Amino acid sequence: MKTSGGSDAAKRRAGESAADAVADGEVVGLGTGSTAAHAIREIGDRIDAGLDVRGVATSFASRELALDAGIPLLDLDEVVGPDAPGIDVAVDGADRVAGGDLIKGGGAAHAREKIVDAAADRFLVVADPSKLSATLDRPVPVELLPAARSPVAAAVRELGGDPVLRRAKRKDGPVVTDNGNLVLDCDFGEIDDPERLATALSTSPGVVEHGLFVDLADEIHIGTADGIRIERP
Amino acid sequence: MKTSGGSDAAKRRAGESAADAVADGEVVGLGTGSTAAHAIREIGDRIDAGLDVRGVATSFASRELALDAGIPLLDLDEVVGPDAPGIDVAVDGADRVAGGDLIKGGGAAHAREKIVDAAADRFLVVADPSKLSATLDRPVPVELLPAARSPVAAAVRELGGDPVLRRAKRKDGPVVTDNGNLVLDCDFGEIDDPERLATALSTSPGVVEHGLFVDLADEIHIGTADGIRIERP
Repeated sequence: MKTSGGSDAAKRRAGESAADAVADGEVVGLGTGSTAAHAIREIGDRIDAGLDVRGVATSFASRELALDAGIPLLDLDEVVGPDAPGIDVAVDGADRVAGGDLIKGGGAAHAREKIVDAAADRFLVVADPSKLSATLDRPVPVELLPAARSPVAAAVRELGGDPVLRRAKRKDGPVVTDNGNLVLDCDFGEIDDPERLATALSTSPGVVEHGLFVDLADEIHIGTADGIRIERP
Repeated sequence: MKTSGGSDAAKRRAGESAADAVADGEVVGLGTGSTAAHAIREIGDRIDAGLDVRGVATSFASRELALDAGIPLLDLDEVVGPDAPGIDVAVDGADRVAGGDLIKGGGAAHAREKIVDAAADRFLVVADPSKLSATLDRPVPVELLPAARSPVAAAVRELGGDPVLRRAKRKDGPVVTDNGNLVLDCDFGEIDDPERLATALSTSPGVVEHGLFVDLADEIHIGTADGIRIERP
């Protein structure tokens, strides 16, 4: 679980700001993590007050929160495709934000997050200032098929990264994702060319999804100590 | 199961030829499908006659065949990585061969096949003439996370393909892969630029692995009506 920096008040402001950007009648992708959780609760409050929206969860955790917040849920199958309504907007957090590029996956939910965030017409990132950086400089979580651990680790080393298997707490052995896979946290230092690294990781056999979200974000809602700032990359 | 064209005798000859190319002491990736099955049985026969090799399976099916043939097996973890012996050679079939490029995945095992085939020092394809073609012109199997069916289908249509969910026999609903995922068979007609399509599919959120094997094969062993032909792309 990512419980890294950032005050809870700043995260709440970011969540409120994104919830404000959701319009009546829309289908909303619901992200995972502590800041996205604020947005989910805010959207739930607005539904209590009469807003008509439906949600699409990005994880077990966001589904649970959405049910608790009273947000009617749809499956991705129901909203994406010919004659389907589509996802109007996705609201999701990030572990690192540099310009319009993100690192996600601290909660190991980045595969389904990317499916939903990429499918949405508008993707709003919610963050606090502790997540901002000039360049992406944190380890990139890479979800992979369990059998592919050694070959993917070798590919990551080939790309200049240092792969570490994410170990579980409250169970022995590795973290297993909602999709039944493993996660390697891959430290590449400062990432100069995120798009090139993203493609190299995607095309490595055994990789299911990596945590680089390149050129997907439409707005970054940053909760600060005393307000909110919205960046449009 | 792919039980498509090609005589059994031709497939057997291809399997024998690839088994001949396996040297004493080597670690061998064991492919999936009817032609690779011949190679596995041939390698088993040679082990009975004194050859010392160990195998790495690419699927439930190839593991079962290898156990039956008496081939000692290793996990990928044991053979790939620092201080590990590596995979010396992989022997695997294909549904379509055009020059050095392949379409695989008729048996829905292409994800683990690609992990093993790509990790091997030498990758030998076993085929019969019915698999050869001037261009790749068969539907490309795409393994995907179950939640991503509609978004991946939309991405395939965007790339000019026609995606069809592979339905199971002997169970209701879809084929579920050894990795717990679904398969879309995606018809792109004749594929002019396999590398570009491969990258586009790999980078689509929700795609686990596609059946395009571009520039991976080192030798194609083609069993014919009266012999064997080896091509080196």
